Amino acid sequence: MLRVPYDDLYTALHRATLHLGLQSDRAALCARLFAETTCDGVYTHGLDRFPRFAEMVANGSIDVHAEPTRVSGDSALAIERWEGNLGPGNLNAHSSMQRAITLARRHGLGCVALANTNHWMRGGTYGWLAVDAGLFAVCWTNTLTNLPPWGASTPALGNNPLVLAVPRPAGAHVVLDMAMSQFSYGTLSAYSARGAQLPVPGGYDQAGKLTTDPAAIEASKRALAIGYWKGSGLSLVLDLLAAMLSGGRATHEIPRDPTRESGVSQVFLAIDPTTFADRAELDGIAAAVLESLRAATPIDPGKPVRYPGEQTLHLRQENLRLGVPVTPAVWQQLQSLAF
Amino acid sequence: MLRVPYDDLYTALHRATLHLGLQSDRAALCARLFAETTCDGVYTHGLDRFPRFAEMVANGSIDVHAEPTRVSGDSALAIERWEGNLGPGNLNAHSSMQRAITLARRHGLGCVALANTNHWMRGGTYGWLAVDAGLFAVCWTNTLTNLPPWGASTPALGNNPLVLAVPRPAGAHVVLDMAMSQFSYGTLSAYSARGAQLPVPGGYDQAGKLTTDPAAIEASKRALAIGYWKGSGLSLVLDLLAAMLSGGRATHEIPRDPTRESGVSQVFLAIDPTTFADRAELDGIAAAVLESLRAATPIDPGKPVRYPGEQTLHLRQENLRLGVPVTPAVWQQLQSLAF
Repeated sequence: MLRVPYDDLYTALHRATLHLGLQSDRAALCARLFAETTCDGVYTHGLDRFPRFAEMVANGSIDVHAEPTRVSGDSALAIERWEGNLGPGNLNAHSSMQRAITLARRHGLGCVALANTNHWMRGGTYGWLAVDAGLFAVCWTNTLTNLPPWGASTPALGNNPLVLAVPRPAGAHVVLDMAMSQFSYGTLSAYSARGAQLPVPGGYDQAGKLTTDPAAIEASKRALAIGYWKGSGLSLVLDLLAAMLSGGRATHEIPRDPTRESGVSQVFLAIDPTTFADRAELDGIAAAVLESLRAATPIDPGKPVRYPGEQTLHLRQENLRLGVPVTPAVWQQLQSLAF
Repeated sequence: MLRVPYDDLYTALHRATLHLGLQSDRAALCARLFAETTCDGVYTHGLDRFPRFAEMVANGSIDVHAEPTRVSGDSALAIERWEGNLGPGNLNAHSSMQRAITLARRHGLGCVALANTNHWMRGGTYGWLAVDAGLFAVCWTNTLTNLPPWGASTPALGNNPLVLAVPRPAGAHVVLDMAMSQFSYGTLSAYSARGAQLPVPGGYDQAGKLTTDPAAIEASKRALAIGYWKGSGLSLVLDLLAAMLSGGRATHEIPRDPTRESGVSQVFLAIDPTTFADRAELDGIAAAVLESLRAATPIDPGKPVRYPGEQTLHLRQENLRLGVPVTPAVWQQLQSLAF
């Protein structure tokens, strides 16, 4: 992998978002969100995803000029419905979490339900946004159909990523960003490409047997939800909540072609603890919890137990210092604006 | 199993709660919650749990006279902190979800964070409470330490049950009630008592190998979180949220003796969709989602895919008609008030 300075990565992405037709501030923010996601090591939703983002602008799935508009909610309410107008998913999601934060500062907690938006890229981004502002956050999205429900052999659920974020001092936030599938199809194909077995069972083979063989799961399309029947139920309920709260599309209505996966529904919830609690008290509670976690006996003595987000912060700091690793072919494509 | 009419079950439980010292309305509600949970087939937190409830009243863990008191939150806020004063967990939780519903009717959504309460028995109860009133609900509790975090061989997390509930017409609500462990220790011991293997891996044996042998997991104490690292992260974050929002105890501070598991923290969130949406629109969205779920090809042609809560409603109706199955020994103990 090639390492490039963060500023160079951002600048190249900014040139590219302008090239795609995004206007001034929006082009800058869209580029920054892609650059930060790459810097945090989430390539699948950072730089390596940019070509598909460009393709979806080209095929009309993403309207670069569209901004979200409020549909309902008077100022007495802490929850609002917004219409995404098929704008860029990361800009829509950023704006929605910002709005949830504004509502939370007023009401203690605030919620935005967003219909007809696009893939938000890395969900964790909106968790980091809230915790950097000192708030708790919970958000999730529905997706296209890619997961069989428990008891079925054909897909009827999305993997519906869920984000929960807890603010802590000095940027050491706890940010959990997890899809409802045990492994994404991207991860399965990465394992099968190098002929490796999965570390834990990831789905069923065509004979209906639980397997760690990624190729067998790719063939059966029977990827596993986390916790079997439990993740299946959780995925279903997250989809119901997203579609019903926003008034938008449910998983079964979202186009199954990944280059046309558009019109998804999302929920953004923020909680401002300073409206009812003392910051130092909260920091003390979190520090004691993470201390008790670290006190667990690690299976590998060289690998102490970590909390979600801990590794992201280390990697971010390392990549800011040494340069952000990029996939050379995609980096080349970005610089030549060959979309 | 013996079947007894629901009214007889309720009457016997009511006599027992009065015997434990609960006052009029509180004795009646506490008895009803235990009776309904039993009628819904959740014995572990219904009738069969009553002897331990009585034991915890006797040993001072539960104060039958204590009621929750509001700690913070002015009337402009949609979130409030409450102190549980170590009252009966099901009464405290019922009162907290009722309060979240009241806040949601005013603000669109409402949240109560409850400190120093007791085991809420069946978590789903508070989901059913909200959906029967036409609201969405999310609630969770922390617990004593019973689950190793990902990468560790010793427990440092609770199994922290999480409930999500979606209102639907005619009582056909979607209610998901799931702990963060793949199987409870109660389920493990039920399987090992009859010499059966688990249907899917439920933990690690003492050699650190993933296993479906319940006895091996009971010996290692290495039960598995749902989705391995994912459920481990989710359990941690739910504990952080419960303790930080309520200002109460985190999992590591809760006594590990199950007969003294007291002072837990809980969060209750309710959303009133009628403040921003049309009920018929919501019902249509949910019906279409559940229709798409049922359209998935079942693995066993005789077992169509079900949604969470579907079986509960059938079982409830059957038990109201035929009588509620009870464990004869516990039923005998209840009638003789031998606590």
